[in-house]
Amino acid sequence: MRNINEDTITQAVLAAMAGCKQPRLRTIMVSLVQHLHSFAREVELTEDEWFKAIQFLTAVGHITDDVRQEFILLSDVLGLSTLVTAQNNAKPAGCTEATVFGPFFVENAPEYALGADIANGAGGEPCHVSGQVRSLDGRPLAGVRMDVWQSDEDGHYDVQRPPTETQPHTHRARGRLRTDAQGRYHFRSILAQPYPIPHDGPVGKMLEALGRHPWRPAHLHFMLEAAGHERLITHVFRDQDRYLDSDAVFGVRSTLIAPWVRHEAGPAPDGSVQERPFWTLHYDFVLNPQATTVAASGTDTAGARA
Amino acid sequence: MRNINEDTITQAVLAAMAGCKQPRLRTIMVSLVQHLHSFAREVELTEDEWFKAIQFLTAVGHITDDVRQEFILLSDVLGLSTLVTAQNNAKPAGCTEATVFGPFFVENAPEYALGADIANGAGGEPCHVSGQVRSLDGRPLAGVRMDVWQSDEDGHYDVQRPPTETQPHTHRARGRLRTDAQGRYHFRSILAQPYPIPHDGPVGKMLEALGRHPWRPAHLHFMLEAAGHERLITHVFRDQDRYLDSDAVFGVRSTLIAPWVRHEAGPAPDGSVQERPFWTLHYDFVLNPQATTVAASGTDTAGARA
Ligand SMILES: [Fe+2]
Ligand SMILES: [Fe+2]
Repeated sequence: MRNINEDTITQAVLAAMAGCKQPRLRTIMVSLVQHLHSFAREVELTEDEWFKAIQFLTAVGHITDDVRQEFILLSDVLGLSTLVTAQNNAKPAGCTEATVFGPFFVENAPEYALGADIANGAGGEPCHVSGQVRSLDGRPLAGVRMDVWQSDEDGHYDVQRPPTETQPHTHRARGRLRTDAQGRYHFRSILAQPYPIPHDGPVGKMLEALGRHPWRPAHLHFMLEAAGHERLITHVFRDQDRYLDSDAVFGVRSTLIAPWVRHEAGPAPDGSVQERPFWTLHYDFVLNPQATTVAASGTDTAGARA
Repeated sequence: MRNINEDTITQAVLAAMAGCKQPRLRTIMVSLVQHLHSFAREVELTEDEWFKAIQFLTAVGHITDDVRQEFILLSDVLGLSTLVTAQNNAKPAGCTEATVFGPFFVENAPEYALGADIANGAGGEPCHVSGQVRSLDGRPLAGVRMDVWQSDEDGHYDVQRPPTETQPHTHRARGRLRTDAQGRYHFRSILAQPYPIPHDGPVGKMLEALGRHPWRPAHLHFMLEAAGHERLITHVFRDQDRYLDSDAVFGVRSTLIAPWVRHEAGPAPDGSVQERPFWTLHYDFVLNPQATTVAASGTDTAGARA
């Protein structure tokens, strides 16, 4: 420890963790230190570059608050979120694939009855969404808790806009539903639009320096929780979106792309008559049964993200 | 880009950076992404662990402000700072070695005449520090700008204490001096004490979980800038300190350890008569000549840390 140099520092740091009483933490930190040091050696990181990295991380930390999570954005655009999602959500063939969670989920969104309009004032062309939730064996799943959240016509989530006098609701274009006895769901909302991830902060500057755009293809977010099944966090993407091949956060799966169909004014699937053009989306979900696991409690399983 | 999985995500992220117009940035980011992904694969990082990491980095960002830099602390305790310092400061044999900068440097510390007391109210046993600054060929270097900063008897730097009515000065136990015509320097201060790095934040919690202590052996910080020479950022460590073999930030070099000698009350090296016991430290610095470089301006060469 008195003559550490660039060759011996890694071993010294690992040796300092020999007393760690949490084996998993030690495994993680040993690997992290080795890769961090390998990176700094491989690129021969300079002191100026190191300091720029400190300044960058500081800026990421300072722009992060209750409604903006720049570290998740950073993880997303570096592909780490997709990697972690993928390696933890391998499912049997036939199950709906998972994708990244993203930073715009909100706890305790309002609960809606099936058929309700969850837009709650968010702007956009009407969109009627329906489908069924089944288990891998084809059995319809009743009472599945389904969280939905999405962007509006300007590509903004409600949490990105302060409430205004004309749009006083905090929760717009997001809500919680439960499937009916046949596993079916349907609700009305607005057409989701492609949007840039927040790019007025350090992650946006980084993307620009890397020659990357910040756009995501249009999608609906879903989180489904059913007794005896693995929780599913995923998106449904709008087919023919121009960003399907360059999603800034690497979230697209071809099995999650679905046709969003435009209709002229007239009768809608829910029996109403629409006075302006509207869209429909039909998507079925297949959840992965967990042989050995107790049912999800349905209360706060997303609490880790609170 | 539509069927990314845990095996193909890394290549997808690298491909997305193909348009980067800054070759060095691209080199760094390619290596960073590869090592980040290798780490996540190697430890099979779970979604909960990923989210704990997001929370940890958020806490590191939120505790960081103008006077506390938790990201530098994190880099320090993971050995990254020492690695970057070492690989950028290889010097010819005979030159004084560099070590980590640390988070407690302050721009525009007060300038003092040689012989001054830089303690400026900081508490501790008096310490008289002297030495000479030379070039590698033995030539004394006159007019070398010398920044000194250190902890007080409680192991605190001035920036860790708000000014009080009895200690109104912002800058305590830090200052800037210049060597005389013979390259000599001397000043009076207080005896530096070992101190724990700030450990009431997320980095402190991490050290505790890793079974590591937060202590650093007692030291003086020096930054020396001389025309035609490489800037030197280093410490002088107090011999026989109990933490020399377990410095929390891996900064100790055996060549930087020097005897700090205790004396009973009586005549001191500066000609004064001390009424209480005092200490002396004598340390010579040898700077690395830069054959091809213009002289340091002496104005804001530490600006990158501002
Ligand atoms: Fe989204
Ligand atoms: Fe220090």
